[in-house]
Amino acid sequence: MFIPSSRLQSVEESKSVKLSALVAKLKAQGKNIIALNVGEPTFNPNDAIISATQSALAEFKTRYDLVPGTNELREEIALKENRKKENILISNGSKQILYNLFQVILNPDDEVIIPTPYWTSFPESIRLASGRPVFSSGEDLDLDLSDIESKITPKTKAIIINSPNNPSGHIYSTESLTQLALIAQKHDLLIISDEAYDEIVYDGLSPFSVASISQDAYERTIQVKSFSKTYCMTGFRLGYLLAKPEIVQAVNKLQSHLSGNNCTFAQYGALAALKMDQSCVTEMVKKMEGKRNLAYSLFNELFPHKKPQGAFYLFPQIKNDDIDFCERILKEAHVALLPGSAFGAPGYFRLSYTASDEDLNTAYQRIKAIL
Amino acid sequence: MFIPSSRLQSVEESKSVKLSALVAKLKAQGKNIIALNVGEPTFNPNDAIISATQSALAEFKTRYDLVPGTNELREEIALKENRKKENILISNGSKQILYNLFQVILNPDDEVIIPTPYWTSFPESIRLASGRPVFSSGEDLDLDLSDIESKITPKTKAIIINSPNNPSGHIYSTESLTQLALIAQKHDLLIISDEAYDEIVYDGLSPFSVASISQDAYERTIQVKSFSKTYCMTGFRLGYLLAKPEIVQAVNKLQSHLSGNNCTFAQYGALAALKMDQSCVTEMVKKMEGKRNLAYSLFNELFPHKKPQGAFYLFPQIKNDDIDFCERILKEAHVALLPGSAFGAPGYFRLSYTASDEDLNTAYQRIKAIL
Repeated sequence: MFIPSSRLQSVEESKSVKLSALVAKLKAQGKNIIALNVGEPTFNPNDAIISATQSALAEFKTRYDLVPGTNELREEIALKENRKKENILISNGSKQILYNLFQVILNPDDEVIIPTPYWTSFPESIRLASGRPVFSSGEDLDLDLSDIESKITPKTKAIIINSPNNPSGHIYSTESLTQLALIAQKHDLLIISDEAYDEIVYDGLSPFSVASISQDAYERTIQVKSFSKTYCMTGFRLGYLLAKPEIVQAVNKLQSHLSGNNCTFAQYGALAALKMDQSCVTEMVKKMEGKRNLAYSLFNELFPHKKPQGAFYLFPQIKNDDIDFCERILKEAHVALLPGSAFGAPGYFRLSYTASDEDLNTAYQRIKAIL
Repeated sequence: MFIPSSRLQSVEESKSVKLSALVAKLKAQGKNIIALNVGEPTFNPNDAIISATQSALAEFKTRYDLVPGTNELREEIALKENRKKENILISNGSKQILYNLFQVILNPDDEVIIPTPYWTSFPESIRLASGRPVFSSGEDLDLDLSDIESKITPKTKAIIINSPNNPSGHIYSTESLTQLALIAQKHDLLIISDEAYDEIVYDGLSPFSVASISQDAYERTIQVKSFSKTYCMTGFRLGYLLAKPEIVQAVNKLQSHLSGNNCTFAQYGALAALKMDQSCVTEMVKKMEGKRNLAYSLFNELFPHKKPQGAFYLFPQIKNDDIDFCERILKEAHVALLPGSAFGAPGYFRLSYTASDEDLNTAYQRIKAIL
């Protein structure tokens, strides 16, 4: 009666989502788990965001709205991003933006090049569109540009990058991105640039997109952005894409059948996030930089590795099998981490340092005690 | 650089969504359009729903949550539906439930039988999963069971029905559904039962699902439900499915990569909807029945047709080309209707009677004047 489709059989459940469900279950059983697995700020959204969403509810912004997003929100994003409304489409998180894009771009067996480590849903989203993920791993968590170019075939449609990177916290250098843009131009490929963490950068760095490298790069890059991290709005499920109108229109056509418009009143929270004084973002990033410093100073002692400059993860290399290692840490130290294998980087693990300083210290003590 | 994928080229933008965008544009230009095109109650959600959602925001229910839905909401749905949590998954409207199901069930060229008239996204959602919609049209907006059975092939995976029906407002008889269940059993097919309007029924009728016909029908039916119509929560984007755990698990795997969890705080609004005194639903349905009576008495005079017993649409047959007819009504009478072609039923048009009584009367006068 029911046999899962072959596209479904080609993928695994999101490993990070699966672990989150396990951690929730263990916590419900009364286990004192420190969850350093979740890619989510523990700060709350700003009051302006909460009250704007509440007001939208009071004003009954509870009806269907336009599929690509409310006019007001798209116009405000256009202002921020120096684009037009026609370049913008809003979806249920940048997760759905990516899913949509692959459905719209890929025919069966088309290829997308993914530098490792990568965000865990990239390959699965590509497989769900009957495409083939092609991996490229570089030294020191950086891009290996000649390896990337060597993997381009007539079937290659796009290169997808994520900088600041989840899981590594690494930011690709302007030089690497310039080279990447030239390769994309030479082979006429799209660049999908997942910029969910673009504003969460430290050490005096500013957001930087491959789209800003040249006019050609601007034309061929699809920027994927999110309200989740910058504004601590993960549960609102709001992400957006910036692209040429014909790509926006294609995604809109898909989305009109897939899910329709996003939650209407939630979009008024996002509108408030863009309109409010952005100093609270600066403050949040400053606090997160403090956490980065604390977490790095603690865990670099146990697992020496390069200091990350963005996002909110450490991604140290270990000698052991990373899956065994993370299972042991969960079982014996009651600290949840994610194995590098989930991100195409076996032998690493990801630690999210968004937890309280106290939890970071306790996690450090617990892990140190069992090593 | 960008050529839309063949799956995207195989579909058209949702016709109802497209018309809604056009109507919004005309209204913004100052045109006094009466929008009888939108499948949406004009009542507001109950206060209990609004304030529970606001409270969830105040309590910072603004984080990621579980992909199939919050535990509390799934448990409350389980109570209402006399099922277990494992039978339930929540998605961004029943639109995404349907999209998800076809992705999970269909391999390329698999077939799904759709009785006409059908909800406009059924065939497109099937095509987006590389499947083939196979249409069956009956007399008097009813099922033609021998035609349905004659269209079953080794590639047929499911039959999808929608009762009360959008666009027709028709409710399939228990006898028809019993026959349908037997056909599905004989050929071992899934039944997908879109029950978005199950509680919006008139003339003393009660909600009725094909799943309740027999133990076998219960096992092979996937019920698709929505908060949108019963609770006037269209903009919340919340629908759910009821199915066997293996189907829920398969959809969960897809959804973990496609969109993750639904908007977290919106789900607390749905929780309140289920927990509140349901008499406001009874009242809303009673008011809607009044509107049905008004709209039917007005428009039956112009377009004699069978009185619908559910949902909130009239679906009269006309002699003319339905697309030309609706364009003319929009242009000359400034009333937006949807052509039957959008629902696989050329020669009909859909009129949504959720508008105010005044608007229904004015629309009637305007249409009468130009006929």
